[in-house]
Amino acid sequence: MLLLRRCLSLARFSPLNSQRHQVSPTVALCAVRLCSSSGGGGGGGEDQRSYQHTHRPRWRHALAGLLAGSGAVLAYGLHNHKAEQEDISVQNLKKRSGLPIYSQEEVTKHRSLENGVWVTYKGGVYDITEFVAMHPGGEKILLAAGGALEPFWALYAVHNQEHVLEILSEYKVGELSVEDQKKQQAIKSSDPYASDPERHPVLHVNSLKPFNAEPPPEILTDSYVTPSAFFFKRNHLPVPHVDPATYQLRVEGLPGGVLTLSLEDLKTRFPKHTITATLQCAGNRRSEMNKVKQVKGLNWGIAAISNATWSGARLRDVLLAAGYRPDVAQWAHHVQFEGLDKDVTGTTYGASIPINKAISEEGDVLLAYEMNGEDIPLDHGFPVRAVVPGVVGARNVKWLGKIVVSAEESSSHWQQNDYKGFSPGTDWDTVDFKSAPAIQELPIQSAITTPADGATIDRSVETVTVKGYAWSGGGREVVRVDVSLDGGKTWQVAQLRGSEEGQGPESSPPPGRAWAWKLWEITAPFPHEAEELEIVCKAVDSSYNAQPDTVSPIWNLRGVLSNAWHRVKVKVREDEREA
Amino acid sequence: MLLLRRCLSLARFSPLNSQRHQVSPTVALCAVRLCSSSGGGGGGGEDQRSYQHTHRPRWRHALAGLLAGSGAVLAYGLHNHKAEQEDISVQNLKKRSGLPIYSQEEVTKHRSLENGVWVTYKGGVYDITEFVAMHPGGEKILLAAGGALEPFWALYAVHNQEHVLEILSEYKVGELSVEDQKKQQAIKSSDPYASDPERHPVLHVNSLKPFNAEPPPEILTDSYVTPSAFFFKRNHLPVPHVDPATYQLRVEGLPGGVLTLSLEDLKTRFPKHTITATLQCAGNRRSEMNKVKQVKGLNWGIAAISNATWSGARLRDVLLAAGYRPDVAQWAHHVQFEGLDKDVTGTTYGASIPINKAISEEGDVLLAYEMNGEDIPLDHGFPVRAVVPGVVGARNVKWLGKIVVSAEESSSHWQQNDYKGFSPGTDWDTVDFKSAPAIQELPIQSAITTPADGATIDRSVETVTVKGYAWSGGGREVVRVDVSLDGGKTWQVAQLRGSEEGQGPESSPPPGRAWAWKLWEITAPFPHEAEELEIVCKAVDSSYNAQPDTVSPIWNLRGVLSNAWHRVKVKVREDEREA
Repeated sequence: MLLLRRCLSLARFSPLNSQRHQVSPTVALCAVRLCSSSGGGGGGGEDQRSYQHTHRPRWRHALAGLLAGSGAVLAYGLHNHKAEQEDISVQNLKKRSGLPIYSQEEVTKHRSLENGVWVTYKGGVYDITEFVAMHPGGEKILLAAGGALEPFWALYAVHNQEHVLEILSEYKVGELSVEDQKKQQAIKSSDPYASDPERHPVLHVNSLKPFNAEPPPEILTDSYVTPSAFFFKRNHLPVPHVDPATYQLRVEGLPGGVLTLSLEDLKTRFPKHTITATLQCAGNRRSEMNKVKQVKGLNWGIAAISNATWSGARLRDVLLAAGYRPDVAQWAHHVQFEGLDKDVTGTTYGASIPINKAISEEGDVLLAYEMNGEDIPLDHGFPVRAVVPGVVGARNVKWLGKIVVSAEESSSHWQQNDYKGFSPGTDWDTVDFKSAPAIQELPIQSAITTPADGATIDRSVETVTVKGYAWSGGGREVVRVDVSLDGGKTWQVAQLRGSEEGQGPESSPPPGRAWAWKLWEITAPFPHEAEELEIVCKAVDSSYNAQPDTVSPIWNLRGVLSNAWHRVKVKVREDEREA
Repeated sequence: MLLLRRCLSLARFSPLNSQRHQVSPTVALCAVRLCSSSGGGGGGGEDQRSYQHTHRPRWRHALAGLLAGSGAVLAYGLHNHKAEQEDISVQNLKKRSGLPIYSQEEVTKHRSLENGVWVTYKGGVYDITEFVAMHPGGEKILLAAGGALEPFWALYAVHNQEHVLEILSEYKVGELSVEDQKKQQAIKSSDPYASDPERHPVLHVNSLKPFNAEPPPEILTDSYVTPSAFFFKRNHLPVPHVDPATYQLRVEGLPGGVLTLSLEDLKTRFPKHTITATLQCAGNRRSEMNKVKQVKGLNWGIAAISNATWSGARLRDVLLAAGYRPDVAQWAHHVQFEGLDKDVTGTTYGASIPINKAISEEGDVLLAYEMNGEDIPLDHGFPVRAVVPGVVGARNVKWLGKIVVSAEESSSHWQQNDYKGFSPGTDWDTVDFKSAPAIQELPIQSAITTPADGATIDRSVETVTVKGYAWSGGGREVVRVDVSLDGGKTWQVAQLRGSEEGQGPESSPPPGRAWAWKLWEITAPFPHEAEELEIVCKAVDSSYNAQPDTVSPIWNLRGVLSNAWHRVKVKVREDEREA
């Protein structure tokens, strides 16, 4: 919206403002075209086509997420945009013949705000200097300065959309010389996602490139420990393929100098520590915020959360081996993680956690090499990922390549300008990312997985069974889940379960170390007078924090931390067999 | 309510059920009488009378708390009770002449559920065996078995009420012999509260005996560090007078045996550690829950919370000196505190905290001997109290006499059967105190101290200034306070302050060690179209926990953990000078 507003205000000074339109109904249409073409044209081949086939009925849902962008980097807030003409952008791109011809050499001179920022795309030359300040992904756009956009858009596939081309068209200043166009075509851009692993077809895909998907809610709570194939997947970049034989983890920033560890070192030099821990994406349940007012981010449902057992070396043990001593804490306040997943410029995914979490005996931070008793799957960080229990998924860095003990937080985009919470009154015009702390521990959360919203129930039934999950960050144990069948007027207490069904109840974890969720269930008498049930759940953790009642007051522009009471409506049907 | 219902059901089998009545309008009246007589008759003399004088306009408010009882021990849920006759109890007590005469020796034989539980009161003998299970204070009533009630009721003054006498009257079985009555009168029961210290007259008194009072909200946020005289006071028992020269603290339960420390030992053998920490009563803001549905407990407003600097020895250091070693944590899970304040039977106030909080370097638990740079005042635990930052006030045991490292929580009433949270659907018939954890860390909290609810504001003003406090338990820092002038439709972000006004901003505390509150303030344009302002505040802590929107869904039978958005209504007045 900020973007749109700024573009509109700029447009007043542009000869092209008559070509701006508001899109919306056609968004799904053009995006389907996009995804089909990227599936067919990329390196996915048979596999990719089979995903499309499987997910066709879900496109409309998944596309909402894809279109909302994958992280602020990719977000263009296009839902308020309405196209009344098909292929308007292609017309625009071709319209301005008669513009000057530039060589690649000339284009390359424009790589800074001072000298102008030029890029090329499909033979056109664009001066995007004015757009840099408006780019939702920030100055990252400068990485493409002086060169071609194609390799970046192959990475951040969300750019491949009508309205993005439409915006681009306004900045056209010339044509690239025919010789240089031929040279560009010779360097065929490959699909960096071509070697992403196969995924289970049951997953609801929110974004294919990078891959982001969640299991269906009814499957999520079938098992206390989520099978890895169903565990939600949240990638920011293509999945890197790391050879375990040559893998090396660098530990930097400590007085002893750099420590380098092989996978074998991690497995043999340090005790193997196992925890069961729930990971949750900061954007879990974002779709409920989108219903209040459009936010930027993947349109997650209620299943961007899963629970697994993780085994590995304790970060604490590795830091001690690398030279950590108590006096280090006087200047070192953070432990930074760098992934091996990177974009075309070599920028890796990064995040950091407070050093007291990293070094505490009770923090249980792992450099995990096993998930659910097996090697960590490719999508979840093979061969080594950080598992920071009680902390938002984004800090549990996958494909871990480097650990840096530092006085500073990670400088990565995802630590500094993303994954932070703001007031509902803060918009993209007023937001100051420095004013909010990076999300670490997450607040109390719960959701209903059965019945589904919109399900029907026969009036003749005696009882209603409701199931779901509940979890809180910071190792705070879920101590109670309240369930209402009447929209929150009256409440009953659900049964909690902290282990696989059939197993005896686990003993309560030590205070502050309850890393895993509770599954819950309640079977309550069916209220026969009801025309419709509004089923609501809310959980309480060991610090007696409760979930807020409604979404609006916690709405925030990035759509994170969506933890209001979860509500599903169930219709009551007159039993046909009775009639 | 439970009590009343049970009594009524019992009454079906009693010849006296026609004498049961519902009281309510007369509650204030009879309580005023009670308080006047206890003030005049007790040891308070001039001081006590002056409190009554000062607080006369506030009696109606303060009495609601007094009547609701001081802790579950004292609670009789009498607000639903309605008396249609004055002095019904006195009539009842005298009515049954012709009952047998018993000697004290005979009464003394009835001291157990097996042999019957008899007590005497003003010459009457009562068989209260059946009532024991209904006593809101639990089996504590057995302490009086076989003897006189008077010394207990002098301690727990809330018993001195019409409806309590009314209940008692039903259990009358005889008269005490005249000789034994004379002997009882000879042992005149003294007022155990007679030596309580003087208090500042500005405090709003919720209960005189034990003393419970809070400062006026507008004074509360005048200073970042609350002056000790204004710091809220929450006593469970009479204030003990401890001689600092002979004071001894016992530390038990560790392999090294018992360690005994004098005040001088605490001051000289251990480093002096100072923290600024906010303490909050679990019942802060209980009065808002009472508006939803009557709860049991003191009717606190929004000021059962205050902030002070505390200095003392670290509990960790003392435990290490007493023989704590890491292997102790394998069996020891709790550290119990015993106060030197006791009831007539010698039962002391007690509570416990998890051992990881006690022993952690980052837990900052103090055995404090200074408050705001001076000896701890009598009301706050002179000479030594536990300060457990981030944890509910009830575990910050005052007049500390004993520390026990144990596998078990404190067995005290206040740890086991009080200070726990329950679902709004749980009532006194269904409550199982074992099903909920003892409150330790408190949830995110905030409240508006200026303007007051019901204040008026001139329509001609340009801006509105709103002030308040915000705090969260567990060392979680308050990171944002949102303020709404329109009942929660739109929100603005308040300015936070973490130190005294005029001082520079303190550097942010380490993660998880933000023990002190933030004061906040916002000056917003006055919305001139408004007929009334509904000002609302809500805070967010570093784990991004938010306050629940409304009170009803977090209502609980003890009225603890009242942390919904705080709302005040302000009337808009046409400016008379303008008219």
